[in-house]
Amino acid sequence: MNIRRVGELGLIRRIRDARNGVDDPGVVLGIGDDTAVLALEPGAVLLATTDLVVEDVHFRRASASPRDIGWKAVTVNLSDIAAMGGRPRWALVGLAIPTSTEVEDVEAFYDGLREAAAPHGVAVVGGDTSESPRGWFVNVTLLGEHTGAPRLRSAARPGDAVAVTGMLGRAAAGLALLEMGAERARAAAMDPAAAEECVRAHLRPTARVAEGRWLGEAAGVHAMIDCSDGIATDLGHICRESGGGARVRLDRLPVAEAAREAALALGRDPIEWAAGGGEDYELLLTCDPASAEALAAGLRAATGTRLTVIGEIEGSETGIVWLGPDGRRVAVRAGHEHFGG
Amino acid sequence: MNIRRVGELGLIRRIRDARNGVDDPGVVLGIGDDTAVLALEPGAVLLATTDLVVEDVHFRRASASPRDIGWKAVTVNLSDIAAMGGRPRWALVGLAIPTSTEVEDVEAFYDGLREAAAPHGVAVVGGDTSESPRGWFVNVTLLGEHTGAPRLRSAARPGDAVAVTGMLGRAAAGLALLEMGAERARAAAMDPAAAEECVRAHLRPTARVAEGRWLGEAAGVHAMIDCSDGIATDLGHICRESGGGARVRLDRLPVAEAAREAALALGRDPIEWAAGGGEDYELLLTCDPASAEALAAGLRAATGTRLTVIGEIEGSETGIVWLGPDGRRVAVRAGHEHFGG
Repeated sequence: MNIRRVGELGLIRRIRDARNGVDDPGVVLGIGDDTAVLALEPGAVLLATTDLVVEDVHFRRASASPRDIGWKAVTVNLSDIAAMGGRPRWALVGLAIPTSTEVEDVEAFYDGLREAAAPHGVAVVGGDTSESPRGWFVNVTLLGEHTGAPRLRSAARPGDAVAVTGMLGRAAAGLALLEMGAERARAAAMDPAAAEECVRAHLRPTARVAEGRWLGEAAGVHAMIDCSDGIATDLGHICRESGGGARVRLDRLPVAEAAREAALALGRDPIEWAAGGGEDYELLLTCDPASAEALAAGLRAATGTRLTVIGEIEGSETGIVWLGPDGRRVAVRAGHEHFGG
Repeated sequence: MNIRRVGELGLIRRIRDARNGVDDPGVVLGIGDDTAVLALEPGAVLLATTDLVVEDVHFRRASASPRDIGWKAVTVNLSDIAAMGGRPRWALVGLAIPTSTEVEDVEAFYDGLREAAAPHGVAVVGGDTSESPRGWFVNVTLLGEHTGAPRLRSAARPGDAVAVTGMLGRAAAGLALLEMGAERARAAAMDPAAAEECVRAHLRPTARVAEGRWLGEAAGVHAMIDCSDGIATDLGHICRESGGGARVRLDRLPVAEAAREAALALGRDPIEWAAGGGEDYELLLTCDPASAEALAAGLRAATGTRLTVIGEIEGSETGIVWLGPDGRRVAVRAGHEHFGG
């Protein structure tokens, strides 16, 4: 059914009526008035972040379903709250879509959004819908809270170990597979399960929320950021905000096996994907080097997620120096930036 | 200078470096980390609202400057916080623009945004920028706080007086003037000052923030909403949420003199603009009828803004009944809704 048949108010009613799956006493008033009314935990500070997800910039309708779009629009924001060590709480959703859109696609978008949000206890408490002259535009604002000290990009210290959660490179591999098209991807003859794993990492990333909260409270963790734009760009942010440089050992980067397989099949460099690809939504942190081993063991025990030391912070503003297995400097392409700047 | 020459990070740096004009101890951490970190007043609840402003849907670049767009994107949200009786505090800004955009236009957009926000003590604390394949897409999320009881749409009671702040109809008149084009508007030969007043009301609306806070604390005020979609639609929201109907006397609607002049010049009905036009961003409220006179006097003394009783709430769900000067029912076109539903 086309959205013109139900209209904006009909659409809002459907969104509001759909069960959120989150029973949250902090939502004093949800969707349906001029604003949402929300209650933070006593003593908590508020965390707020917003991210755009734009058709033909961040995704293509040919490969991303409305459910995927909703999922990802929430997850990229969950990842920002995770990087502060915070607790995500509430989402507000701006959605502009062409008038030719089907109601079922809009509902699937909100289903994907809630599917990603609900396991973290995040309720959708507000939003706005509009016609779009061309393409889907999604803007999710996520609100969270922190009862301790948020982990900042600026807190790295000279001598800190640089570590990253999980495995890298799958999202970039998935994007490469999607961009070459289904037929050519099949012709590359890689393991279908590995290809599917990479594509899924791109379309349905996971935010490290539990890991962020654990690391945010752990002793020895200093700076933290999420790997949305790739290690190269995001470690660059830490260095710039903290006033230092970094050395990264490329052979220590935890490259996912599926990304290695995809790189082999497509004739690409898996290290480039892992270092510069972005969208893995792992957490990148710096910590007291003496604490690194205990942090890795503790994080694994608490969440099942690995933590890998990949380099160290330097006092001088050298930028990021990438080292090969032989200890020599190598060049790595930087991460993604809009407007080609 | 084209935005491609400074890139996304250059753009964010320019936005961050620009003085906000707001010195806010509640901003623990502003733009520049994964999330903003914000501190509410002790005991306050959080208010959150988000609104889309889309090129060729909400504005046209031919008539709205980037500064106008920024101004309006904040003001429509300020109005939502005002309608709760709350205090606006912080804005997050999603902006998607074509790569052909000039840096100066982006800076003018943020200037307009801050120009509207700063007088209310609102700081821009976060945002996201993206390329847009076509047109400008703006999504502003505004966070506010309330230390008392927010004024809800659902709080109207049978017998309540229905009242509205300020004067109506100018924004709809301004839109009509803009849509007919400068040449034909000039040919309509209306007073240029009145025409300018109407166009300005459309492009640079004012949110009734001080009025909302005063009314939000005043005894006798029950339901409140902002007139973003027109009296017809917005009073309809109050009736639906409160489970009642309403009678409105059309001859009591406070139609702005400039809107009357525009209507005369264009051969349009000023009452239709005032009742159904929308975007006046006045506050519509219901109150104890015995308090109406004192509320009007108090609001005028505190803010200089008039409050006009235009009708009353009825116990039965009759919808909105419009009455002419002779007390007979008349038909009025409803307000704006997206997707033509």
